[in-house]
Amino acid sequence: MATFQPADPAFEARVKDSFARQSMMKLLGAFLERVVPGEVDIGLPFRADLTQQHGYLHAGVTTSIADSACGYAALSLMPPGAAVLTVEFKVNLMAPAAGEVFVARGRVLKAGRTLTTCSGDVFAVAAGDPKHILTMLATVMTVQNRSGLSD
Amino acid sequence: MATFQPADPAFEARVKDSFARQSMMKLLGAFLERVVPGEVDIGLPFRADLTQQHGYLHAGVTTSIADSACGYAALSLMPPGAAVLTVEFKVNLMAPAAGEVFVARGRVLKAGRTLTTCSGDVFAVAAGDPKHILTMLATVMTVQNRSGLSD
Amino acid sequence: MATFQPADPAFEARVKDSFARQSMMKLLGAFLERVVPGEVDIGLPFRADLTQQHGYLHAGVTTSIADSACGYAALSLMPPGAAVLTVEFKVNLMAPAAGEVFVARGRVLKAGRTLTTCSGDVFAVAAGDPKHILTMLATVMTVQNRSGLSD
Amino acid sequence: MATFQPADPAFEARVKDSFARQSMMKLLGAFLERVVPGEVDIGLPFRADLTQQHGYLHAGVTTSIADSACGYAALSLMPPGAAVLTVEFKVNLMAPAAGEVFVARGRVLKAGRTLTTCSGDVFAVAAGDPKHILTMLATVMTVQNRSGLSD
Repeated sequence: MATFQPADPAFEARVKDSFARQSMMKLLGAFLERVVPGEVDIGLPFRADLTQQHGYLHAGVTTSIADSACGYAALSLMPPGAAVLTVEFKVNLMAPAAGEVFVARGRVLKAGRTLTTCSGDVFAVAAGDPKHILTMLATVMTVQNRSGLSD
Repeated sequence: MATFQPADPAFEARVKDSFARQSMMKLLGAFLERVVPGEVDIGLPFRADLTQQHGYLHAGVTTSIADSACGYAALSLMPPGAAVLTVEFKVNLMAPAAGEVFVARGRVLKAGRTLTTCSGDVFAVAAGDPKHILTMLATVMTVQNRSGLSD
Repeated sequence: MATFQPADPAFEARVKDSFARQSMMKLLGAFLERVVPGEVDIGLPFRADLTQQHGYLHAGVTTSIADSACGYAALSLMPPGAAVLTVEFKVNLMAPAAGEVFVARGRVLKAGRTLTTCSGDVFAVAAGDPKHILTMLATVMTVQNRSGLSD
Repeated sequence: MATFQPADPAFEARVKDSFARQSMMKLLGAFLERVVPGEVDIGLPFRADLTQQHGYLHAGVTTSIADSACGYAALSLMPPGAAVLTVEFKVNLMAPAAGEVFVARGRVLKAGRTLTTCSGDVFAVAAGDPKHILTMLATVMTVQNRSGLSD
């Protein structure tokens, strides 16, 4: 696996600050678990109001934390002042989202000047046993701060 | 565009019943707008607690309603007793999710015995003017009722 | 559907010149059928040496013409001197690629300064009857000519 | 990484036989490098007639070998008599396809009764140094032999 050098020494604080401003993560009960250069984990406990018609987490929930994990993995490598935007992603839902807690891991596969390719994986943990339930492939864009967006 | 014959005359009630059991749609404030054979619209008003760090709707929110719209478009054509599962999807986020209300339209492109291909589109409406902000391509599976899942 | 104004009045000649330099299109026997701003059609007759193990066209063949059609639909709207690169795409293979001739249509959904979102569709024609067999969603990048790439 | 038990002891011969019937692989000059349960490598030397307008391999070429590698990784785990069909895939093209030889590796992430999720990666090798240029996420279907398709 690639080892990444962050372009911004304050990458961790920056990811935490941005995550804290994602109201949607708060609504879902998601929390930032781990931030290293090019890799971010987001946790989410099961909650009945996040489910679809069969009682599993809605695909939109697991996709939300995978998307944020990928975006922040990319942001952790960006230069100061740049903002991150998701261009597109694809997910495969490999098993029902049944479990007590869910962990999304986003990882940078290739960091380019404008575009970053990330992979995301969500694991459902039940009785301490993680099961791989979702895999994501995402394209994330670096938006320079002249755009008026803060990261 | 294809015209579809529903295999279940009670397709509309069935979609409504299933949608009502998706707790996640209630949490997001989403509502079922329109159900015709092979096509379903879901509406969602803007809310500040659904946003990402720049104040736009989180991609997970627009993806959630697009996924449900695609799944229910597929379910509207399935035989009685079958349940619907999303296999995978891809979204392109073509513009920031800024607006007063959002409408996701799911449409069946090809309905097969086991797999159905759907397209989804999300429009952001501001001052009555719809803007196309997201497009989805999804694969949905028909699960026979011997599986124990209800639709 | 959107109507597009080409940024380069010579867009048609430019697409034709670039297509003629795609050796892969020649190897496959593909030809440029139609170029309008934001929309390009590529045709391909069936050939036995393009098949997979069941005698249908290999998915890589139909994907190749869909990718080129999407890329050239995007290029048709780009300013003079810019080059086009495919960032990513997804295809759904909705039916086996059986037929006498195949037509890939690429269309621009959203043209941005850096990124363009395109949809692609491949139709298999047998006895004059077109069947929709593949749908693509693609992200294409505009590379400015300072990069040293010609379009 | 998962370890897989093949359901068919003759999995290797079966993959080789099927690969030999993919005319498209022969046209591209691709060869089967390695077949283990759940993982298949396909090699391809650079050839000028496989290129796009900038002289790199056409995305359709690298996608073709990644698709075949994913399909055969899935087939290597299928029961005797089953055939394999690609349902859909997505690729991210992370760098230009420049190199002397290309290797596509397909791997099964999750093997289900009907659907198998695979990841694919293509590496471009120049002067002995591999570069990761493409990543694929694919859904493959097991078609029972009552369908009349041979694998």
